[in-house]
Amino acid sequence: MDATSVTPGPKKIILDCDPGHDDAVALLLAHGNPDIELLAVTTVVGNQTLEKVTRNALAVGTIAGITGVPFAAGCDRPLVRSIETAPDIHGESGMDGPAQPEPTIELDPRHAVDLIIDTIMAHEPGTVTLVPTAGLTNIAMAVRKEPRVVERVKEVVLMGGGYHVGNWSAVAEFNIIIDPEAAHIVFNEKWPVVMVGLDLTHQALATPDVVAQIEAVGTGPARFVRELMDFFAQTYKDAQGFDYPPVHDPCAVAYVIDPTVMTTRKVPVNVELQGTLTLGMTVADFRAPAPEDCHTSVAVELDHGKFWKLVTDALVRIGEVEAK
Amino acid sequence: MDATSVTPGPKKIILDCDPGHDDAVALLLAHGNPDIELLAVTTVVGNQTLEKVTRNALAVGTIAGITGVPFAAGCDRPLVRSIETAPDIHGESGMDGPAQPEPTIELDPRHAVDLIIDTIMAHEPGTVTLVPTAGLTNIAMAVRKEPRVVERVKEVVLMGGGYHVGNWSAVAEFNIIIDPEAAHIVFNEKWPVVMVGLDLTHQALATPDVVAQIEAVGTGPARFVRELMDFFAQTYKDAQGFDYPPVHDPCAVAYVIDPTVMTTRKVPVNVELQGTLTLGMTVADFRAPAPEDCHTSVAVELDHGKFWKLVTDALVRIGEVEAK
Amino acid sequence: MDATSVTPGPKKIILDCDPGHDDAVALLLAHGNPDIELLAVTTVVGNQTLEKVTRNALAVGTIAGITGVPFAAGCDRPLVRSIETAPDIHGESGMDGPAQPEPTIELDPRHAVDLIIDTIMAHEPGTVTLVPTAGLTNIAMAVRKEPRVVERVKEVVLMGGGYHVGNWSAVAEFNIIIDPEAAHIVFNEKWPVVMVGLDLTHQALATPDVVAQIEAVGTGPARFVRELMDFFAQTYKDAQGFDYPPVHDPCAVAYVIDPTVMTTRKVPVNVELQGTLTLGMTVADFRAPAPEDCHTSVAVELDHGKFWKLVTDALVRIGEVEAK
Amino acid sequence: MDATSVTPGPKKIILDCDPGHDDAVALLLAHGNPDIELLAVTTVVGNQTLEKVTRNALAVGTIAGITGVPFAAGCDRPLVRSIETAPDIHGESGMDGPAQPEPTIELDPRHAVDLIIDTIMAHEPGTVTLVPTAGLTNIAMAVRKEPRVVERVKEVVLMGGGYHVGNWSAVAEFNIIIDPEAAHIVFNEKWPVVMVGLDLTHQALATPDVVAQIEAVGTGPARFVRELMDFFAQTYKDAQGFDYPPVHDPCAVAYVIDPTVMTTRKVPVNVELQGTLTLGMTVADFRAPAPEDCHTSVAVELDHGKFWKLVTDALVRIGEVEAK
Ligand SMILES: [Ca+2]
Ligand SMILES: [Ca+2]
Ligand SMILES: [Ca+2]
Ligand SMILES: [Ca+2]
Repeated sequence: MDATSVTPGPKKIILDCDPGHDDAVALLLAHGNPDIELLAVTTVVGNQTLEKVTRNALAVGTIAGITGVPFAAGCDRPLVRSIETAPDIHGESGMDGPAQPEPTIELDPRHAVDLIIDTIMAHEPGTVTLVPTAGLTNIAMAVRKEPRVVERVKEVVLMGGGYHVGNWSAVAEFNIIIDPEAAHIVFNEKWPVVMVGLDLTHQALATPDVVAQIEAVGTGPARFVRELMDFFAQTYKDAQGFDYPPVHDPCAVAYVIDPTVMTTRKVPVNVELQGTLTLGMTVADFRAPAPEDCHTSVAVELDHGKFWKLVTDALVRIGEVEAK
Repeated sequence: MDATSVTPGPKKIILDCDPGHDDAVALLLAHGNPDIELLAVTTVVGNQTLEKVTRNALAVGTIAGITGVPFAAGCDRPLVRSIETAPDIHGESGMDGPAQPEPTIELDPRHAVDLIIDTIMAHEPGTVTLVPTAGLTNIAMAVRKEPRVVERVKEVVLMGGGYHVGNWSAVAEFNIIIDPEAAHIVFNEKWPVVMVGLDLTHQALATPDVVAQIEAVGTGPARFVRELMDFFAQTYKDAQGFDYPPVHDPCAVAYVIDPTVMTTRKVPVNVELQGTLTLGMTVADFRAPAPEDCHTSVAVELDHGKFWKLVTDALVRIGEVEAK
Repeated sequence: MDATSVTPGPKKIILDCDPGHDDAVALLLAHGNPDIELLAVTTVVGNQTLEKVTRNALAVGTIAGITGVPFAAGCDRPLVRSIETAPDIHGESGMDGPAQPEPTIELDPRHAVDLIIDTIMAHEPGTVTLVPTAGLTNIAMAVRKEPRVVERVKEVVLMGGGYHVGNWSAVAEFNIIIDPEAAHIVFNEKWPVVMVGLDLTHQALATPDVVAQIEAVGTGPARFVRELMDFFAQTYKDAQGFDYPPVHDPCAVAYVIDPTVMTTRKVPVNVELQGTLTLGMTVADFRAPAPEDCHTSVAVELDHGKFWKLVTDALVRIGEVEAK
Repeated sequence: MDATSVTPGPKKIILDCDPGHDDAVALLLAHGNPDIELLAVTTVVGNQTLEKVTRNALAVGTIAGITGVPFAAGCDRPLVRSIETAPDIHGESGMDGPAQPEPTIELDPRHAVDLIIDTIMAHEPGTVTLVPTAGLTNIAMAVRKEPRVVERVKEVVLMGGGYHVGNWSAVAEFNIIIDPEAAHIVFNEKWPVVMVGLDLTHQALATPDVVAQIEAVGTGPARFVRELMDFFAQTYKDAQGFDYPPVHDPCAVAYVIDPTVMTTRKVPVNVELQGTLTLGMTVADFRAPAPEDCHTSVAVELDHGKFWKLVTDALVRIGEVEAK
């Protein structure tokens, strides 16, 4: 019986995000699912500037009726590279589409890096899962500032990368290529890392039946998600030629809730920092069975129905949220 | 009706190789198949030193009873990088296993680069196919010395690379990584390039039924191939954990004979020259439909039965070869 | 009359160091010179592990009789690269040679990155000078965690790099090459950076007359410096063939005390992150007059006598220190 | 008495160039100096396209009255990189300024690479000096096509690079950065290489007294040189802020004529192929005495008077040239 199997109760997670349409769904899923205990929400530059994604996170928290969870803002730029945002996908606000309420949640005064460190160090070793769904700047900074977080964390389940699929270059994914040095730091620490990359998330399409199913929930938060998906569908069609938009970030949360929602494979993964064509590629070495001490794995195949049922169920459980 | 379809008679090829067990099979296939006219055989450092692979090429030519085809030796080292050979796969001679006859073919006095240029320029435009099954040093040198070969050549059908598979690193293949600058030159010229890479050739396994089928031919050349396969099977099992050895190089020749032996896909491909983890990767960009002017394609799926029948048929056609 | 000239009183500095023989001299100079107000001493992995250099910093503080100044430990490894220390130059302890007292100074509980940020933000804008004499990991982390420090700091006067001289490679210096990404961050922020590099510090040789002059001070701290110099002289002779050791780090402190101790030249400087031969090089572009907004300058020529007089005067002023 | 000192008679050279104002002067110096035997003139893309520089070379040969020396055109683009020319310095023709005669010299039918190889192999070992004053594409191709030239050549005296000075980037020189892979090949072969770089050639300024001295020769070829210098002076002032233009290429020829025209220093030199800021830098490692087997040296200090006297004397010796 290993440490994982004996952890009682809901899974404690820190969601480090850059909302972002799919980050919003990830946050709603984390909040609405009974097997998740959301310890903190931290934001980082990515889909849009830190200011915008932080405002978006607070807005989503308000829509979802989240209370008692600290939200903190983190790094406003990547470690080494210049800022690159994704307005073509997420719009000027970073979460274009639905109307956004004025957030009623107040930001925690701490820096996200400190909130991450404090939260991890305040809980029992092996109990906190990090769920980054954005560039890895905050996580990398936390590791370098407080190296002991590496052995305290249960695992890192991140949305990012891809072993055979890229979106921001032929072979690199947005969350990794916007701060490849941070990603390099995260993948090279000896904690368990589950990479939920594009290979997997390009299966998490918001197909019409999925959208209908979400709409059928009939609540304000569900309508919010539907409107997010409408905008997302359009930009993904225009910018990347998708028939239906891939909803990346909640896949990572879904894996924490129920690992059987996808298959994974243990394989060494590292991040390319020097390539002209391959900068930010998550290089997986499938040539031989993964060595005993391999601490990285990659998501391979999604159970599409089970995944979207988790999302819909979370929306049902959140229900209607009263304005405060 | 395009230029290709009107070309009458057999396909004229120049085989640029580094025998090499699979190069030997490629040469036998090219010689034995009636739809191929072998214009020249050129050698280049790769699986072993230039001296060894050149001797091997002459030996295979002798075993196959090839006459009237010029054999020329080319570059003895890659353009920029140091020499890297593959004794773990091909042995100390570069073609370990079967006994080798003393070659009775004499080497052409020309440098392979000049033989390649002369041969291309001496034939009608659009009639000569280059079939490199080794590092691309000779081909790159020919292009730089005589740029007009690019528009004269019908196409380049090369064994090398891989869009999702590597063997000499996690994401790079031997023929490309031993001279990535040469490969970069070849992939960036505007001639048609068909990359028959590991994605395809790892399907070209010499399974027991294949070996039995070759053995059944019952000739000296067939026995030679069987002994090559025995050695190759052992080194591929030991060095890379294969159950049966992938016989890479004849796949490129087979494509020239009959493109329906495999499926291909048009996609932009370029070669990474700078990566720490990705040096020599053949980076294919599958994110969007290939642009109109895309001149590169990659081999995807092999018809295993059809491929090996071509090889066996060639051996049958070669028959027994008298020592001269 | 510019901002600099009106700053009254002593110059407030934060010394970020990795003692290190020359860091020790830098700390003694900062403490003993009346024009310097030492706000904080922070440590970072470099010449030796964080644990060792932190212990050394406390030991030097004890020897110098420093009180009321917070000492804090920072990052225990570079941002992206592996740890590289310099035992050939500084010995196993990082400050081999003289006997070291048990430190009587207690470490501040804060992380160096936070102490740096807090100290800068607690003082008037334009009053605090950062003096890094080690790898730039702490400084880079502080900038990324609290971007406002950049406009608050008066200037960064760092020992590191070299425009025409290298020591850890043909063209790179130790403090930069051990964490080139951190250096890249520091040089690319828009604060004034004075690079006191090897071009300058290789003029700061502890020649016999200098050593004699220090010895003549006749105090415990002076004896400590002399013993440091003896060890340093030997390792620099053995490892790099110097007749007399270059005492790098106090040059940066000396510049803060009195900029006329050296000449400087305004020139754009950036840090190479990709080169095979040039990784960590501080690339200065002397091709044209520096542009108006150039915020970097490099130290060129040292007034050897004036520099060493500053060091000796500081030792005289420190005098004999009573054990507490 | 070493091999060099016993070589009787004039020094045999192959001039590989891209005229180019200073290449023109180099060719005139080589032709007019009695201690040089010009075996061949080869051209390569550089200051302008191959077509233009080849025409220019033939024009200069015509102006100088050169007969019996083969001129051959070489590579029309660098090995790996795209073509970069220097119209800001040399104008649209590559040799703007003076009127150019219709060349009366016919081009040798051989490729420059073959002419270089043939010429070296046809002469006694140790008797032929290569003098490249352009990108090193031809030389690199010759080395890779015929590796034996390396041990046959007496030495390579090239204009290019700079150990502390750049012109096409902060730290790289034009001839090297336009084909860094070729330069890497040339510097890494074990033949003697004398790098006459910008450190030296920025001392070879065509000052007013120099121009007056050339004008005083009073012949057609001298007038041609003066007009070249006039144009060169203007572009160097406009593009790089020089008071007087540095006349790079004849410095290499001058070294062959009389090594005492400059001081040199033995030092390991290699070429950076990967740097973002340092691509094409000629990295010299001055940290220790050059090792015994060091085969590279760099030019340091020019005897300005002696150098320009060689040029003027050559013009005097060439005298007036009759149109044929
Ligand atoms: Ca996200
Ligand atoms: Ca081969
Ligand atoms: Ca130091
Ligand atoms: Ca030139």
